Amino acid sequence: MPVFTRTFSVNMQGRSHMENISDAVRHCLSQTRLQAGIVTIFVRHTTASVLIVEDEPGLRADTSTLWDNLVPADPAWQHNTGNPGEDNGHSHLRGQIQGHSLTIPFAGHELLLGTWQDIVILDFDTRARSREIIVQMIGE
Amino acid sequence: MPVFTRTFSVNMQGRSHMENISDAVRHCLSQTRLQAGIVTIFVRHTTASVLIVEDEPGLRADTSTLWDNLVPADPAWQHNTGNPGEDNGHSHLRGQIQGHSLTIPFAGHELLLGTWQDIVILDFDTRARSREIIVQMIGE
Amino acid sequence: MPVFTRTFSVNMQGRSHMENISDAVRHCLSQTRLQAGIVTIFVRHTTASVLIVEDEPGLRADTSTLWDNLVPADPAWQHNTGNPGEDNGHSHLRGQIQGHSLTIPFAGHELLLGTWQDIVILDFDTRARSREIIVQMIGE
Repeated sequence: MPVFTRTFSVNMQGRSHMENISDAVRHCLSQTRLQAGIVTIFVRHTTASVLIVEDEPGLRADTSTLWDNLVPADPAWQHNTGNPGEDNGHSHLRGQIQGHSLTIPFAGHELLLGTWQDIVILDFDTRARSREIIVQMIGE
Repeated sequence: MPVFTRTFSVNMQGRSHMENISDAVRHCLSQTRLQAGIVTIFVRHTTASVLIVEDEPGLRADTSTLWDNLVPADPAWQHNTGNPGEDNGHSHLRGQIQGHSLTIPFAGHELLLGTWQDIVILDFDTRARSREIIVQMIGE
Repeated sequence: MPVFTRTFSVNMQGRSHMENISDAVRHCLSQTRLQAGIVTIFVRHTTASVLIVEDEPGLRADTSTLWDNLVPADPAWQHNTGNPGEDNGHSHLRGQIQGHSLTIPFAGHELLLGTWQDIVILDFDTRARSREIIVQMIGE
């Protein structure tokens, strides 16, 4: 049972910018001959997350509103006050709750996502950045 | 190292209804001969989640209260205002934070859950629905 | 493709005490000959979590502040009112949102963590406890 590890980058704008990577993940799987197993999608950054959403404009806007309410940007976060030049304490806190790793099973050489489920990167940082994404497949 | 993929459905009532699937997952594992590895439990829907809780009535009630506070039901979510007939914007937002995938290691042909840990489905939608659950085991 | 399951304990103080286990996880991986695959880190308790953070003093303080705001300690949680002697309803609710399982890919015999990513245990309970952690590696 082999392991395939792929890496790609996504240009993100920060401030709750969301980017759909479902097709990129499907492409990684299609390049293997694996029939069944798991895909691990991993973001190598603390201030961006990977998650499943129904990707439509209303929920993109609502996701941004929600995080602004739950974990407000605030100069008083100690990450900002204790580290000169930093303004993204809230970005770290949002990232660690939403998470950096996602595991999705596949079978019949297809991801077992539901009809409305998309895989997205959600970037909480305060500026544009390129983000490195790992897609690793294990199976048979 | 083989892969076993099982599917079952759970009838859920929505509105933070919680259903314990620990025994169903154990049953899936018992039907394989795998000794050690991981079980991935995956919910194929955006408005329901899988998670670990101590399953007792107080925490079932508190979980419902907590989500009503953190992510209120609100006709003003853009998922609702932008999509005629939709009223479950909050259900999507709760589901994407709580998550749709859970990985649990096993060894000695047993799940390595702690004494008080149960696996549950938590349904955030606004109406009753049948939910499809994937249980996939990889190991040796 | 073999499976290696390791267990260790961490002494935690509760009240959002955070402990860095990155080196402990790296040590588990170094004791195998696996080149590529996934590590699953699993906390066998409901009131503590495993997650990725940038581990610096400001964010340790901010994480504690955030959880006190999002899910306040409150004698009125039904877990407390319904179970004599319990005072940790908020600890359960925080633990179930933050989660008990984390999957990290590795390749070249190294964890694929980003530069600023550390693996930590975050203990939400109201008293000091020893916590049992599973580190399980699957790969080739």
